[in-house]
Amino acid sequence: MMKLYDYCASGNGYKARLLLSWLGEAHEYIEINIHEGETHTPEFLAMNPAGQIPVLILEDGRCLAESNAILFYLGLGSSYLPPDAFTQAEILRWMFFEQYKHEPAIAVARFITVYAPKRKKELPALIKRGYAALDIMETHLSTRDYFVGDGLTIADISLYGYTHVATEGGFDMKPYKFIKKWLKRVKDHPDYVSIKKPPK
Amino acid sequence: MMKLYDYCASGNGYKARLLLSWLGEAHEYIEINIHEGETHTPEFLAMNPAGQIPVLILEDGRCLAESNAILFYLGLGSSYLPPDAFTQAEILRWMFFEQYKHEPAIAVARFITVYAPKRKKELPALIKRGYAALDIMETHLSTRDYFVGDGLTIADISLYGYTHVATEGGFDMKPYKFIKKWLKRVKDHPDYVSIKKPPK
Repeated sequence: MMKLYDYCASGNGYKARLLLSWLGEAHEYIEINIHEGETHTPEFLAMNPAGQIPVLILEDGRCLAESNAILFYLGLGSSYLPPDAFTQAEILRWMFFEQYKHEPAIAVARFITVYAPKRKKELPALIKRGYAALDIMETHLSTRDYFVGDGLTIADISLYGYTHVATEGGFDMKPYKFIKKWLKRVKDHPDYVSIKKPPK
Repeated sequence: MMKLYDYCASGNGYKARLLLSWLGEAHEYIEINIHEGETHTPEFLAMNPAGQIPVLILEDGRCLAESNAILFYLGLGSSYLPPDAFTQAEILRWMFFEQYKHEPAIAVARFITVYAPKRKKELPALIKRGYAALDIMETHLSTRDYFVGDGLTIADISLYGYTHVATEGGFDMKPYKFIKKWLKRVKDHPDYVSIKKPPK
């Protein structure tokens, strides 16, 4: 059985959990407390020297880091990552957008708001960058139901991870009517699972 | 013939140019002046709403943005992106590392140093983050010649783009003996081309 090293409230880890659920892939879940340095032990750094969850461990013991690389590996051969070359490249294009323009603003604003209020002076710049990313998503979704093609792909999962909890970082999602319809489309998947809440 | 919208001194654009050269793919090069707002015209934003070069235009007119998605599309079917699923995922893992931990520090430090000295107060934090990324690369390369597998892949191209000009952003590369050997391995490719210099 595959193992997923993850942190309950992480949107990056949640992406992997959502796809594992959609694929019906049983896996062992191993909770890592990111607030207690557990991603920087020698054992963890041997799996991922970048010191980040999620990390997927295959049945044969091989390790795979980076949430979007995990989505790619798990998605291959399923309808969530169609085999056409340009379609795959377009999916990756949105996943690189997610890691460059979206996650570093929207996920970090949420992290600071929930866990690191001492860093709150960083928030105005992050909120501005986050809205710019949301504006790009809103425009794209104004003429289509999914990020790439005619159905759900790992690009949707990737962008859903932190968009659906953006309000926890202080983002007002009311003006984003196309994003809100798209969020519902993802959530309506019959094998949808919720992101976990951090322990009190 | 494919077209590449690009800026001469961009490491992100250079990645695409390096792979196009290795593949022997003829293409039309269209220079975009990123300093004069040319990535934010309505025409450019219609190609890439994120307002960034490079953008690849296929022969049939379809547009592809994000340097690493372009590498993936061009690399498919070549030795630089082997077909094995785990190998492809590992390659993407390093390319997501590049866009999340490496480029936002090393490329931005270079940009500020060369073009935006008024932002120099951002440099110390960027330099610290950049060295952390370089340390991860150095450790990885201490036991292997290439980032993934036994030969050059698009992961090497992706990380080479800004690593080989990191000194322009103020990074001291002397301690990185394994990275320096790897840089030479990339440069020794018979179809190597140099990054372009910005106009004076």
